[in-house]
Amino acid sequence: MEQNEKELLEMEGVTMFQPKYSIILANVGMCADRYMSGGYSDPCTIDEMFRRVASVDGVSGVELVSDWNITAKNVDQVRRNLEEYGLKLVSIIPDHFGEMKWGKGAFTSKDPAIRKQAVEDTKELMDISAELGGNLISLWPGQDGYDYYFQGDYIREHEWFAEGVQECCDYRKDVNISIEYKIKEPRNFSYPSTMAVILLMLEKLGRENSGVTIDYGHAHVAGENVAESVALAKEYGNRLLHVHMNDNYGFWDDDMIAGSIHTIPFIEFFYWLKRTGYDGYISTDQYPYREDGRDAVNETVRWMDIFAGLANRIDEKELEEIYATGNACEVSAMLRDLMFGK
Amino acid sequence: MEQNEKELLEMEGVTMFQPKYSIILANVGMCADRYMSGGYSDPCTIDEMFRRVASVDGVSGVELVSDWNITAKNVDQVRRNLEEYGLKLVSIIPDHFGEMKWGKGAFTSKDPAIRKQAVEDTKELMDISAELGGNLISLWPGQDGYDYYFQGDYIREHEWFAEGVQECCDYRKDVNISIEYKIKEPRNFSYPSTMAVILLMLEKLGRENSGVTIDYGHAHVAGENVAESVALAKEYGNRLLHVHMNDNYGFWDDDMIAGSIHTIPFIEFFYWLKRTGYDGYISTDQYPYREDGRDAVNETVRWMDIFAGLANRIDEKELEEIYATGNACEVSAMLRDLMFGK
Amino acid sequence: MEQNEKELLEMEGVTMFQPKYSIILANVGMCADRYMSGGYSDPCTIDEMFRRVASVDGVSGVELVSDWNITAKNVDQVRRNLEEYGLKLVSIIPDHFGEMKWGKGAFTSKDPAIRKQAVEDTKELMDISAELGGNLISLWPGQDGYDYYFQGDYIREHEWFAEGVQECCDYRKDVNISIEYKIKEPRNFSYPSTMAVILLMLEKLGRENSGVTIDYGHAHVAGENVAESVALAKEYGNRLLHVHMNDNYGFWDDDMIAGSIHTIPFIEFFYWLKRTGYDGYISTDQYPYREDGRDAVNETVRWMDIFAGLANRIDEKELEEIYATGNACEVSAMLRDLMFGK
Amino acid sequence: MEQNEKELLEMEGVTMFQPKYSIILANVGMCADRYMSGGYSDPCTIDEMFRRVASVDGVSGVELVSDWNITAKNVDQVRRNLEEYGLKLVSIIPDHFGEMKWGKGAFTSKDPAIRKQAVEDTKELMDISAELGGNLISLWPGQDGYDYYFQGDYIREHEWFAEGVQECCDYRKDVNISIEYKIKEPRNFSYPSTMAVILLMLEKLGRENSGVTIDYGHAHVAGENVAESVALAKEYGNRLLHVHMNDNYGFWDDDMIAGSIHTIPFIEFFYWLKRTGYDGYISTDQYPYREDGRDAVNETVRWMDIFAGLANRIDEKELEEIYATGNACEVSAMLRDLMFGK
Repeated sequence: MEQNEKELLEMEGVTMFQPKYSIILANVGMCADRYMSGGYSDPCTIDEMFRRVASVDGVSGVELVSDWNITAKNVDQVRRNLEEYGLKLVSIIPDHFGEMKWGKGAFTSKDPAIRKQAVEDTKELMDISAELGGNLISLWPGQDGYDYYFQGDYIREHEWFAEGVQECCDYRKDVNISIEYKIKEPRNFSYPSTMAVILLMLEKLGRENSGVTIDYGHAHVAGENVAESVALAKEYGNRLLHVHMNDNYGFWDDDMIAGSIHTIPFIEFFYWLKRTGYDGYISTDQYPYREDGRDAVNETVRWMDIFAGLANRIDEKELEEIYATGNACEVSAMLRDLMFGK
Repeated sequence: MEQNEKELLEMEGVTMFQPKYSIILANVGMCADRYMSGGYSDPCTIDEMFRRVASVDGVSGVELVSDWNITAKNVDQVRRNLEEYGLKLVSIIPDHFGEMKWGKGAFTSKDPAIRKQAVEDTKELMDISAELGGNLISLWPGQDGYDYYFQGDYIREHEWFAEGVQECCDYRKDVNISIEYKIKEPRNFSYPSTMAVILLMLEKLGRENSGVTIDYGHAHVAGENVAESVALAKEYGNRLLHVHMNDNYGFWDDDMIAGSIHTIPFIEFFYWLKRTGYDGYISTDQYPYREDGRDAVNETVRWMDIFAGLANRIDEKELEEIYATGNACEVSAMLRDLMFGK
Repeated sequence: MEQNEKELLEMEGVTMFQPKYSIILANVGMCADRYMSGGYSDPCTIDEMFRRVASVDGVSGVELVSDWNITAKNVDQVRRNLEEYGLKLVSIIPDHFGEMKWGKGAFTSKDPAIRKQAVEDTKELMDISAELGGNLISLWPGQDGYDYYFQGDYIREHEWFAEGVQECCDYRKDVNISIEYKIKEPRNFSYPSTMAVILLMLEKLGRENSGVTIDYGHAHVAGENVAESVALAKEYGNRLLHVHMNDNYGFWDDDMIAGSIHTIPFIEFFYWLKRTGYDGYISTDQYPYREDGRDAVNETVRWMDIFAGLANRIDEKELEEIYATGNACEVSAMLRDLMFGK
Repeated sequence: MEQNEKELLEMEGVTMFQPKYSIILANVGMCADRYMSGGYSDPCTIDEMFRRVASVDGVSGVELVSDWNITAKNVDQVRRNLEEYGLKLVSIIPDHFGEMKWGKGAFTSKDPAIRKQAVEDTKELMDISAELGGNLISLWPGQDGYDYYFQGDYIREHEWFAEGVQECCDYRKDVNISIEYKIKEPRNFSYPSTMAVILLMLEKLGRENSGVTIDYGHAHVAGENVAESVALAKEYGNRLLHVHMNDNYGFWDDDMIAGSIHTIPFIEFFYWLKRTGYDGYISTDQYPYREDGRDAVNETVRWMDIFAGLANRIDEKELEEIYATGNACEVSAMLRDLMFGK
């Protein structure tokens, strides 16, 4: 959206939605998969990855994965980079998925020592986060869940997960724990699987400093209309704390350039972020196996500019009229005009 | 399971799970679809359908859909059939999906008059149910939801749904309202979509006489492992009140003979019904388009006998050992032995 | 695309793709489904449906389903409407799915009398088509296939299907038989399921007057990238004879307004229709259950104008450069510029 | 199946199906994925992997992946192991997916030098295979395909693939090239995607020493009923040369223990292997991330014994009667009796 147009709209009293963008540092590094475990490209240093992130226009924050990008040992290196590039530490994602010890789960490992370690590890990252000016842990319990029928006692494992979250929330109130759900991968059935499953647990725990991270692709694979998931988080405690962006074909977390596959559902998603007053960051979360990582996240940011601009251009009064009848032909015409003009 | 074996197991102190079976009356009638709207076979009278249900060995209950099977006008005919065949009225399913007025929703219609009518209609069915010795309304809000992005205000519509449920629950406490979830069809996005979405709402409403109906096929299409959904309902208020059985290929609510496609997941499902102490009915819920309806539901009941028998044969001590490690190879060997012997 | 822009591009030697649009007559009538078998709206006469079709700007043809819209008995009525509105009869779709006798298959029915009847029926429709100025039968064998494992001898049934097609092709060479594939619904496994399955059979049969109808939604549900399917039809005999348009969410043939869900894949599809020199008609093929049918197909046509316009604006030289490297970030930037400008 | 029962059946003239089992060597080693790229367990030597394979009862062959298990440099080591354990080299799978140079495709790389190298590489493996007593290359072109819309010229890329296959087939006639299809992963759209797509190409090429490898999981994810795919390969040139076994939930190539998720579809698959006279090997093809690899493939072999035994017990006469009517209730009853007795 052009500056002039923005000013005009604001003069008319229209609230503008201008999301803050961040990038998960590892997105601009090297990707591997189960066949190409050595990586599709050469590895990349942390300093180089920061440089790449900073080169993407419009990005003001960065998100780090522990072990991969941040540990107790390289806090200074990270601080230096944050300062050099003027980037905010938006969130730390505890690595509960990439080291062998977590292979069968972290917060819900059948081994109590591992469960304890996962919680201690998260607490340490809460401290590191605060030390670096952050206040958010985005907890993605990738290895928690199960693969085969009859592999676990679901009630016990759900309890273990809630206990871990509670203990972290209670450790220090100035850092938020935001849980990222995913229905599968790397486990065939993952904990927690959907927006509503997290909200159920958070309602029960009742911790102020807890919330939800929506990963657009995870939600899409879970069969959610992600705009409706934003609404649900609003209804039950205004719990949306963070967003991850990427695109996929609907069956798997393909982690592609957001906007390369879908268009209209992203416009609706951005509109509902605006409508519900979301004011957190939106991070890219991609696996650009065969692309230049920096260019691939740049593409997502450029598409997000488009989506935010279109969401801002929606006429609220016209939309309320559509919502009042639900006429799909009017929806279709409104979107076509919005996207491609009359 | 043979009678002798049952007695032996019970003498050893093993709790036996013997589910009560019922049939949705319309299952033994005629089926139509969007291409064959006139029906794949000739229609069938209500008396004839009762006769067919009663011919299925091991079935003690029947479930009715309003408009199709039961209205204020044929209560006597239904009572006569229930008495003649010694069948219990397990549940009434309000028809909020088959008459033109419900085409764009019932409890969440954009038209307040329709919303009101849907609630009044449900209350009347609660009365009829009680009159016929039943105490369960299985509420499947088939036309509630939306098809297109940007077609509705999700927050408002979720509220409408909760208001309708609450009003029905408060109408009379001696009839339970059990809500059946489905992620899609006939709407592309349906309300309510998953087990957790219902539990969230029920926790908020806090009504004693409210609960959840699991339709196995609906849950499967929603990407749930249905045994885990049974566990979830146990965790949050012990809310499972009713079960519908059928099979599908995982992408759509195909409503086929339960056991014709899957085996192991049904064993786990029955095991978890047993483990959580489920003591309600299990109804067939099928659309046997090209089959004889009576034979098709009979097949499901015969498979359920197998699944219940296998669930009963599981050695709890062995299973606890498996749950303690989650060793998938031991799970696999245990199941093969259970199903096909050493 | 504005007229001026078209002229400018043509002056520069750019080949313009201007597809011819048609509408399946029943799209503008009433829809039913398995729950609402009586229909979501009131039925509509054939004359009224023709009037509605004619009211959609840019449409020059119509497609008819036998039994529903055309039989030996109403040829005159149809001719009168075609003439009155200046519409071409683009294709007749034999109803092999909507009458009880076809419930378990037409060309592959286990009953030889039904198979014979299906072939005779198709031949009669070839004659009617020719009589009305048409030259295309779009054969969708909706009830051919199977639902359950172990339900049929696949080899024998594939042969029956090929025999039926061959007999029709040989009946008269001036009418083309174009087969529409679908992977499922109303059967759980349908014949023929994919583009490649048809091409295999057509290669073997070697009939000149045989080809393939792509239904966009069918191909999408089959996991095909539909643009690649267009390429495949080109490679193996240039077999694409007809196209049906609609949109869906990827799991089921939702038959929605094309363009209401997806954008980029439709642009690629139209581009490949252009690239391979497709010059047949494109029909809407929708089930607007809860919409005004006329408005819903109009929306699809309006979106197709957009897609064709965008396909025409693609710079062939730039695209060849992208194809030469496959750089996904360049693809993404090219599409964003194409759709929303620099 | 007990030895006695086998003899009895054979005395009655029943043809027994006794598949030959093999194991892909890497299955018993270590697995990595995109999150745990360092592996879920410690790596394993080739000699140790051979020892593990040999410990699985009933296995007489082994399948090797080049680079990972076999190169021109370790032919002697492999020969020694084959001899020591009395194992047949069933097939070599060229590694066209695990080294950085293949990251954007092998036979269909946009780079002609890479395409050439892939073909030369395959020829060398044909020689090594023959040298070690094998006669089969199972070609899985994992990195061939595309991820994004508009990323390639499908016609040109299909041609490149066919050219590569043809050149390999013509190199030496005593080694078969069997192509394994997969619809996606690691590419979002893979070449070749389905059974029919390969058969189309093989019909055109007309090479005697070419055929198809069915990977059960790949076919299942492609929406195929795999038993029908066996039939299709029989119809078009009797092209089935090899089989890979594993199980999944239907949406992704989860590569789990075959039999841990599904039962009936495997029985039908084995029955159709028998019915069409398949006499090749069946290899396990799994990714037991969190399991002991040796135990996980052993489980698959044990389940295959069950499936083959059940396929052999099917009464051909009874099945023909079922095929003659397609009565799904009779199918269901037949299967329940077969699996669990009357």
